[in-house]
Amino acid sequence: MHNTARIYAVGVGPGDPELITRKGERIIRSAKVICAPTGAADAASYALSIVGELVDPGRQEILTQTFPMMKKGAELEAAWEEAASQVIERVDRGNDVVFITIGDPLLYSTFLYIRRIIQQRRPDIPMEIVPGISSVSAAAAAAGVPLGIAGDRIAILPATYEDYELRRTLKEFDTVVLMKVSRVFDRVYSILQELGLTGKGVFVRRVGSDQEEVVRDISTLLGRELDYLSMLIVKK
Amino acid sequence: MHNTARIYAVGVGPGDPELITRKGERIIRSAKVICAPTGAADAASYALSIVGELVDPGRQEILTQTFPMMKKGAELEAAWEEAASQVIERVDRGNDVVFITIGDPLLYSTFLYIRRIIQQRRPDIPMEIVPGISSVSAAAAAAGVPLGIAGDRIAILPATYEDYELRRTLKEFDTVVLMKVSRVFDRVYSILQELGLTGKGVFVRRVGSDQEEVVRDISTLLGRELDYLSMLIVKK
Repeated sequence: MHNTARIYAVGVGPGDPELITRKGERIIRSAKVICAPTGAADAASYALSIVGELVDPGRQEILTQTFPMMKKGAELEAAWEEAASQVIERVDRGNDVVFITIGDPLLYSTFLYIRRIIQQRRPDIPMEIVPGISSVSAAAAAAGVPLGIAGDRIAILPATYEDYELRRTLKEFDTVVLMKVSRVFDRVYSILQELGLTGKGVFVRRVGSDQEEVVRDISTLLGRELDYLSMLIVKK
Repeated sequence: MHNTARIYAVGVGPGDPELITRKGERIIRSAKVICAPTGAADAASYALSIVGELVDPGRQEILTQTFPMMKKGAELEAAWEEAASQVIERVDRGNDVVFITIGDPLLYSTFLYIRRIIQQRRPDIPMEIVPGISSVSAAAAAAGVPLGIAGDRIAILPATYEDYELRRTLKEFDTVVLMKVSRVFDRVYSILQELGLTGKGVFVRRVGSDQEEVVRDISTLLGRELDYLSMLIVKK
């Protein structure tokens, strides 16, 4: 289909291997190199576990790339630069490289940082993005909550914003998806209470994984230690 | 896998049959009845054209359901009620029914109206939603524009809202996706101009179809007749 080696970013969806697209499957099966991100050098890549049955280590190079979670600044920057170098080297040898990302590559993924570096260093390398099922779509499906009907306005944002910003967004939008809600849940709950919206919130943890859980009575979550990978959908 | 007949809503993505998920493909191939929406009695179903190669009219019933575009109120309500009755009748005969929807079933789809009716009339019928690649994800991928990086705030809304609401949303959010932008483009452009954001807008029409087009210099669109199926992504 093409003569020049290129980079693909394939969104592999939230966890269920059946939520990979047919295009994603084809590209993952055919590429010479698969780059899989992980948060710690000794940890398995979640994205790689999703595509496990599609790859063949005998025929493909599986390159696990570590992006230390909780690290900031120079150390993380160095990890991105190194990952970009590994990719460029393989493309220059004539091999297609696939980055696999959880969810959708354009929605809060690590790939976006590496993409920026590669675009700066080697704008000549063709890059194709294959969209994936985002954790937002998957959580809405698991919870059976519409994201938007007819003329609805939808907001997606980290729950860690200031109270007054969350309050305003919750007032103005028909649907609000709060990402990374685990650490600030009690604070978010009290804002919902103030706005009379506690009954409109649905909590979804680890969507698409074996530990997926949907909680409709969100008052039961107060004071609890919550999973890092969780979100709250508030639908008026 | 299950003994009772059920309803599936399968998002078939924006147009490219390869952007159907593996799960969507499996369910579409195996169901006895496929419901495909169309906007006019004499028009083909776009969703059906996407899944064309997966269905077999010799083995499956293909039920095209008309939801007259541009109609409102009683007439449209009657079309939804009729569609719901057709589905319930087939489930009661023991057949799985699949609704196919363009994009994602939970993001601005006609299925949501029929779902509401079925849930009221027959809450006992199991309904499973299979998420699909939304036109928003697909347009971002086609344009190569990130929807959100790190702590970004994202808003998705119809471009037909009042000027002051559009202006406020464009000021406050990092990414704004304006749906149904065709009829109000010139008005939206002047708001972007006022906010110094014209260079941040990317226009995408008919994403996923043969007529897909990405326009980066959006000033060229001024005064033109634009496609109904188009959106504008503004990424700061």
